[in-house]
Amino acid sequence: MKHYVEDLKWEKGMSVNKLVEEMGGLGFQSVHLNKAKDVIIKMKKNGAKIYFTFTSNMVTSGLRGLFAQLIKLNLVDVVVTTVGGIEEDIMRAQGEKFLVGSFKADDFGLHEKGFNRVGNLLIKNESYEKFETNMKQMLKKVYDKKKRVSVSELLKELGSQLKDENSILYQAHKNNIPIFCPAITDGAFGFHLYLFQQDHKDFIVDVVQDFFNLICTTDQDELKGLIALGGGVSKHHAILGALINGGLDYAVYLTTSHSSSGSMSGATTKEAKSWGKIKDDASASTLIGEVTITFPLIIFSVLDQLAEEGLIKNE
Amino acid sequence: MKHYVEDLKWEKGMSVNKLVEEMGGLGFQSVHLNKAKDVIIKMKKNGAKIYFTFTSNMVTSGLRGLFAQLIKLNLVDVVVTTVGGIEEDIMRAQGEKFLVGSFKADDFGLHEKGFNRVGNLLIKNESYEKFETNMKQMLKKVYDKKKRVSVSELLKELGSQLKDENSILYQAHKNNIPIFCPAITDGAFGFHLYLFQQDHKDFIVDVVQDFFNLICTTDQDELKGLIALGGGVSKHHAILGALINGGLDYAVYLTTSHSSSGSMSGATTKEAKSWGKIKDDASASTLIGEVTITFPLIIFSVLDQLAEEGLIKNE
Amino acid sequence: MKHYVEDLKWEKGMSVNKLVEEMGGLGFQSVHLNKAKDVIIKMKKNGAKIYFTFTSNMVTSGLRGLFAQLIKLNLVDVVVTTVGGIEEDIMRAQGEKFLVGSFKADDFGLHEKGFNRVGNLLIKNESYEKFETNMKQMLKKVYDKKKRVSVSELLKELGSQLKDENSILYQAHKNNIPIFCPAITDGAFGFHLYLFQQDHKDFIVDVVQDFFNLICTTDQDELKGLIALGGGVSKHHAILGALINGGLDYAVYLTTSHSSSGSMSGATTKEAKSWGKIKDDASASTLIGEVTITFPLIIFSVLDQLAEEGLIKNE
Amino acid sequence: MKHYVEDLKWEKGMSVNKLVEEMGGLGFQSVHLNKAKDVIIKMKKNGAKIYFTFTSNMVTSGLRGLFAQLIKLNLVDVVVTTVGGIEEDIMRAQGEKFLVGSFKADDFGLHEKGFNRVGNLLIKNESYEKFETNMKQMLKKVYDKKKRVSVSELLKELGSQLKDENSILYQAHKNNIPIFCPAITDGAFGFHLYLFQQDHKDFIVDVVQDFFNLICTTDQDELKGLIALGGGVSKHHAILGALINGGLDYAVYLTTSHSSSGSMSGATTKEAKSWGKIKDDASASTLIGEVTITFPLIIFSVLDQLAEEGLIKNE
Repeated sequence: MKHYVEDLKWEKGMSVNKLVEEMGGLGFQSVHLNKAKDVIIKMKKNGAKIYFTFTSNMVTSGLRGLFAQLIKLNLVDVVVTTVGGIEEDIMRAQGEKFLVGSFKADDFGLHEKGFNRVGNLLIKNESYEKFETNMKQMLKKVYDKKKRVSVSELLKELGSQLKDENSILYQAHKNNIPIFCPAITDGAFGFHLYLFQQDHKDFIVDVVQDFFNLICTTDQDELKGLIALGGGVSKHHAILGALINGGLDYAVYLTTSHSSSGSMSGATTKEAKSWGKIKDDASASTLIGEVTITFPLIIFSVLDQLAEEGLIKNE
Repeated sequence: MKHYVEDLKWEKGMSVNKLVEEMGGLGFQSVHLNKAKDVIIKMKKNGAKIYFTFTSNMVTSGLRGLFAQLIKLNLVDVVVTTVGGIEEDIMRAQGEKFLVGSFKADDFGLHEKGFNRVGNLLIKNESYEKFETNMKQMLKKVYDKKKRVSVSELLKELGSQLKDENSILYQAHKNNIPIFCPAITDGAFGFHLYLFQQDHKDFIVDVVQDFFNLICTTDQDELKGLIALGGGVSKHHAILGALINGGLDYAVYLTTSHSSSGSMSGATTKEAKSWGKIKDDASASTLIGEVTITFPLIIFSVLDQLAEEGLIKNE
Repeated sequence: MKHYVEDLKWEKGMSVNKLVEEMGGLGFQSVHLNKAKDVIIKMKKNGAKIYFTFTSNMVTSGLRGLFAQLIKLNLVDVVVTTVGGIEEDIMRAQGEKFLVGSFKADDFGLHEKGFNRVGNLLIKNESYEKFETNMKQMLKKVYDKKKRVSVSELLKELGSQLKDENSILYQAHKNNIPIFCPAITDGAFGFHLYLFQQDHKDFIVDVVQDFFNLICTTDQDELKGLIALGGGVSKHHAILGALINGGLDYAVYLTTSHSSSGSMSGATTKEAKSWGKIKDDASASTLIGEVTITFPLIIFSVLDQLAEEGLIKNE
Repeated sequence: MKHYVEDLKWEKGMSVNKLVEEMGGLGFQSVHLNKAKDVIIKMKKNGAKIYFTFTSNMVTSGLRGLFAQLIKLNLVDVVVTTVGGIEEDIMRAQGEKFLVGSFKADDFGLHEKGFNRVGNLLIKNESYEKFETNMKQMLKKVYDKKKRVSVSELLKELGSQLKDENSILYQAHKNNIPIFCPAITDGAFGFHLYLFQQDHKDFIVDVVQDFFNLICTTDQDELKGLIALGGGVSKHHAILGALINGGLDYAVYLTTSHSSSGSMSGATTKEAKSWGKIKDDASASTLIGEVTITFPLIIFSVLDQLAEEGLIKNE
């Protein structure tokens, strides 16, 4: 199914959707980007359950609003992420703001001024301090309902305590989409859980139970798709959950990592086929590129096309 | 001049220009992409002479039409590239077509079928054979006019023999924009030049003369800008030409390479300041990402905004 | 403290240690590699507690034996890793073997033959099946001792059931070095824990308790160092543990990721300073490169020099 | 021909050669490094003509001495590089020294102090000024012998004017190894050639003639091998020269670039097969990694083994 390279030309006011279409006629990563859009549309139209994974830095980056919107629009069915993203979603929902700074910042200077750097973004110490105060109260409310909670139950409860349309946890709660976070203690949140447990010894966060919850989100007979932004445990965990239920039918991996070091972050959809992680006849696309650029392009095009066909609400 | 991260949200039918604007409120490479657009608009509005460099694979990719269009719209003033791009521009102008294939193709099989692979693109042997036949005649016409030519003169003459609106050489000839190619023999073209010289011993391609031509394209008193796609000799050559005339005032580098290996391809606009390659008060942006995705985004946004303000013809 | 570049020359039979010394006189990543060695020697000589983190693919790669050896030689004090590495260490300790294959393998074919690919390495389905059978019995023994275990306790118990000098878990148990694994359910191991819990409802893996254990491994007054191979949760978790105890005094990061996407895997020792993760006067080195090449070079040189000075046992 | 992963273990005083052997039992890039060594030994033992290419930053890095040594030891037969490497080899041969600095240097400050940065290396303005003075005299001597010179002739003449055992040009002249440099004007050297031509209008640097010289270095019947460090025109030019003579029988590519952007720098030995650039039965290895680390490992091991078998002089 080869096609010819087509010369790209600018036209005034071109839409994102049109540009992504045109990228289908270009070489290198552009054609992968276009294919990623096709695979997502196909998984949606065919009624697949869709796993959606991202790393915490992407929440910090400002893609958070878009992630919340995708949940609201029912584009995705299961979310897997890391705890940093949970923390920063809650901070933002409680009014904290992050700054766009520079990769080349003077880090000693930042530290003295109470700023913490994530790439070219800055988070104030103050934001972490408020987060600590808030967490105590939020955890107390969860504990009062239930002493032994799985991670996804815990996150659902926290989501119910937020009120921000742009919050991932809020929308996931409201739309009944589970959020999994296999390394729930790997952040400030872990520290607060520990402090809380010191005073409430019978408080148990049951990660093993959540494995059961994960594999209950889909079953063998359903079509299953994955949109993985970045790598790490969130990507791996969704793949694992799907594998136990027979593997993925569709997969889109967006990553800056390459396969040459054997890492999960760089593992391709091709490699996944050897594991039965992706079925042999799967539609799959791996796109190398930074997610704050590639993902908006792809998903805006997907949403435009689904809205065009009345398959998703116009926002 | 820090600003806050803004949550991105999808809106139906959003234009490329609007999305690029929104990227200014995101972290990581998105904000660099937005800044690259600003720097290009600034160089254009302030009347800088603009160097534009790209590598040959980008011509193959289908960006060729866009490059030709930028020349036609007078967005750029000086072009520097590698000889593969010249060859493929001529092939395409003479009706040859390239195929979009796969990075994972069976290369032995391709070779047997007469296909040559460049990433996920395919060029037929046949295209190279026709190119050879054509080159003989084209070089003869140049030779009949002049025996000792500089590279940029040679490319101008070849451009005059083409008739394709989407051709870089054609538009450069028509709009009087010089194309420099410091490694002119590094391709099939080099072989054809050699064969031609066998029969015409007094035919001389004068690369040293072209250095003079390069430094004559700008002068000390002019503002100078650079848009460099990828690295290698084309990027380096433009920087060198500008350096001799006092250095760059504006620079945008788009590349997939990182600075960690000390290569020219990964060298940043920051490093360039130590050389006086970019003036201390320069506006500069380095964006890590694949050019077939990042460049259309940036330049479509630039052209939309310039067209809005009547600074460029609507196409 | 700048020094001159020195021309490298081959000498017959040169030792790894000598080559690493010579790399101190080269540019780009070589000088970082040499500095990484110096930082590790410094942390060891000054009596710092050393956190050591790696990702599971590195265990698969065959570095496992070296990691076990470093624990045996008391070079490191705290280990943090991901669950895939735990699984593969146990499999290998129980006699399973992995194959070196190819990145370009036919993945459909591998799947049919019962092989799972990790980069250019292959693991048989059979190995996973035996692992499942073994895990049941191993978990039963742990459960018979204790119903509510933290992850590090669990791993210590499992280590006590192995008998392989080259096993990470075995050596950690024997030498009383804790292993942390914040995402313990993110692998086949998670599935086996879940199956076991189905039959033993009072079996609890307490991840929150393990956060306490992590922060008890060091204290505010001790010097603290980190050797992080790759990124992800293992790197982040060690940094977090150290941060709560006042931050790191020494840090060496070896990674294939770059900082441009804002990921934890690519985060540099420079960025860590803004967080107080690394103290302002810290000795730190970030080296870009694949760990199966860079880490043996560095650590062989470190061990040679420490052995030379009688600071470590000759093996 | 699969084999098992072997656990790596440290042994005191291990030689580079032994470590490279052990890497053959590890996964990911280590096994490619080991294979690269095997391919080079094979090409040498089978009497192949060996093309050797590198980029200018590698000369700056201090690998220059090793490159000169490889020429002296007759390990390689044809050299292709970029002009920056030529310039810096000459500067060093004339007593100039480069400094090891930092990637994170203050570039404005460096510029004011007269330092130019290449990654983490520094070159003084003064070194360039002396180079200018020297070039005038050196070119005059060449001109007095011959008015129309090909690039490789020119470089041979310049080599004859140097006296430094560690100089690439000196050793190439002495051992009669041609050096090709297709983009000879792309550097300060280009500027000096231009200034010289201003005063000597009949001075011609004939790049087309050098294409003939390149293809005369090998013939159809000979076995041909390539060791390419980094990418760009030097890598491409050697491949092109070999292709015209029937393609390569052996190839080793060491690079930090990946194939995903379709660039020459990231192009793999696999891709080369589609072009007939590498013969179907070729022995080839692509290794991703920074050359200042990977190349010394490989070549020290190669030289140790060749010396062991008396196939190369002990240094």
